[in-house]
Amino acid sequence: MIDIERLKLVIETKNTFAVVSHTSPDGDSMGSILSFYNFLIEKGKRVDVFVEGQVPRKYLYLNGANEIKNVDLAQESYDCLIVLDCGDLDRLGECMPLTEKCDLIINIDHHITNTRFGNINIVDSNASSVGEMLYDIYLQLGHNISKNIAECLYTSIVSDTGGFKFSNTTSKTMNIVSKLLEKDIDFTSIYYRLFDQKTLNGIKLTSLVVSTLRTYLNGKVAIMNLTKEMLELSGATEDEAGELVNIARDIENVEVGVLIKEIDKNVYKISLRSKDYVDVKDIALKYGGGGHVKAAGCTIKDKTIEQIETILLKDIEKSLGEVI
Amino acid sequence: MIDIERLKLVIETKNTFAVVSHTSPDGDSMGSILSFYNFLIEKGKRVDVFVEGQVPRKYLYLNGANEIKNVDLAQESYDCLIVLDCGDLDRLGECMPLTEKCDLIINIDHHITNTRFGNINIVDSNASSVGEMLYDIYLQLGHNISKNIAECLYTSIVSDTGGFKFSNTTSKTMNIVSKLLEKDIDFTSIYYRLFDQKTLNGIKLTSLVVSTLRTYLNGKVAIMNLTKEMLELSGATEDEAGELVNIARDIENVEVGVLIKEIDKNVYKISLRSKDYVDVKDIALKYGGGGHVKAAGCTIKDKTIEQIETILLKDIEKSLGEVI
Repeated sequence: MIDIERLKLVIETKNTFAVVSHTSPDGDSMGSILSFYNFLIEKGKRVDVFVEGQVPRKYLYLNGANEIKNVDLAQESYDCLIVLDCGDLDRLGECMPLTEKCDLIINIDHHITNTRFGNINIVDSNASSVGEMLYDIYLQLGHNISKNIAECLYTSIVSDTGGFKFSNTTSKTMNIVSKLLEKDIDFTSIYYRLFDQKTLNGIKLTSLVVSTLRTYLNGKVAIMNLTKEMLELSGATEDEAGELVNIARDIENVEVGVLIKEIDKNVYKISLRSKDYVDVKDIALKYGGGGHVKAAGCTIKDKTIEQIETILLKDIEKSLGEVI
Repeated sequence: MIDIERLKLVIETKNTFAVVSHTSPDGDSMGSILSFYNFLIEKGKRVDVFVEGQVPRKYLYLNGANEIKNVDLAQESYDCLIVLDCGDLDRLGECMPLTEKCDLIINIDHHITNTRFGNINIVDSNASSVGEMLYDIYLQLGHNISKNIAECLYTSIVSDTGGFKFSNTTSKTMNIVSKLLEKDIDFTSIYYRLFDQKTLNGIKLTSLVVSTLRTYLNGKVAIMNLTKEMLELSGATEDEAGELVNIARDIENVEVGVLIKEIDKNVYKISLRSKDYVDVKDIALKYGGGGHVKAAGCTIKDKTIEQIETILLKDIEKSLGEVI
């Protein structure tokens, strides 16, 4: 029996479900777990949804967000555990004990590295998001997409595609979004909450960080600092300012954007972003860090910002030189 | 004969075409005129495309952009003039003489106020953009959408929908974008050029303007200044910084964002943006300005920034009070 048929049987025959995603949930995990919550509720099932820690405030508009529990409020047992957007079980963090409370694990994911830890595994690394996969899955299970589900799936897809601008956005992605908009969802308001809404303190922090912006190597490298003093002055958490390092990378002609963030006295976390051709993972690896070709990071201790800047510029100059 | 059939006959029987849009061309006008250029070239026609002044640099990636002419380089006559994204002929500006050089005018537009100035008028105020309309029109004319045309239409649609976030984005819009992505266009690079790419000077100007941000009336109003000194210090044009007033409006809990821009000694241009319920057009009208409910502006003379702030806050407080 193919996995979707087996999943159909599980949904039809089981009654109590736990739904969970990875720690530090993002838009795709929140949208996915709450779409599954709404799907199961609409099917008349008993469902508990779990998140480690607090539900991030910006997702509270999703139907079911107020029902989300921490793992200590879990029942003794569930018929089935639904794990969404998790490459492996370690990413469940504090929610790991749920795996002991369920006989059956359903694993639905789009990470290419997925370890197929479930009894049923539906994995598609070509999907922009788990939300995109779930759209097809609910239809294959014979369920109509409600407005509540559509809002969750839109949240998943728009989040993991960066507002439909990342290269994981496909013709199929946009076709599914087209169907979701037919459900009359308030997508302008969702988009605003996810991308455009900033706190006053977040804007202040951004302004302080950007005021340190300087460029080197013919404008190919842009560097900014984020100090603990700036966090205090602005009253913002780093989250509130968004992905600051992108501001440096997105400048015209810049190839590498760098954010040097003070973590502690003489301890700095370095975020590196490249635009087209420099492999910043290589640079991060040199200092014990890691990441991807165009987005990487590392931590450097016992050096001043000026010293860090000097050594990074040497590394970046070498990478730029190899290509230009 | 319905308009699309008449248009089909024109395209089949005529040979020389002039294509034009409104002054200060935006993404929809640039994408529309260049999609029509590519369409006519693919049909084996002779085409000249016109823009008033310079082609904005950020649209130079579109195929045909380097062929665009100013009106003084127009031929003596054309069989047909194609006018795109223009509510009325006045918006042609310096390109107006083209209307005298052509016997036949085709008017394709999505403004609800369109004056139907053409011999053939195809107007759809429900379309997000003229690019969206043209997708259907090319298909109805029996023409396959090439990659060049797809890049132009994507540019039109993504521009006029603000990256698919404005309320003019419909299920149909997304379905058309889905078809355009099938043409393997480099949409991530187009999106970056249109929305994310900033100049170094533009970032500096943004930072200076945001450093003046202050809030009033319980955080419901956020005001920023843009002085001539900031333009000099940053070396940026205002265009390079993007829609600065939106930064103020987009702050959490803010209802009205205001930018007070110094035009000359004691002359200030005021931009007003509201989020949900305040009618800023009403406020702008009071000072001889105008605009829309959520986006308006006016010019105030012979007052200091502090005095302007005081009178605007009184007006805004009144508008807020009427609703809350």
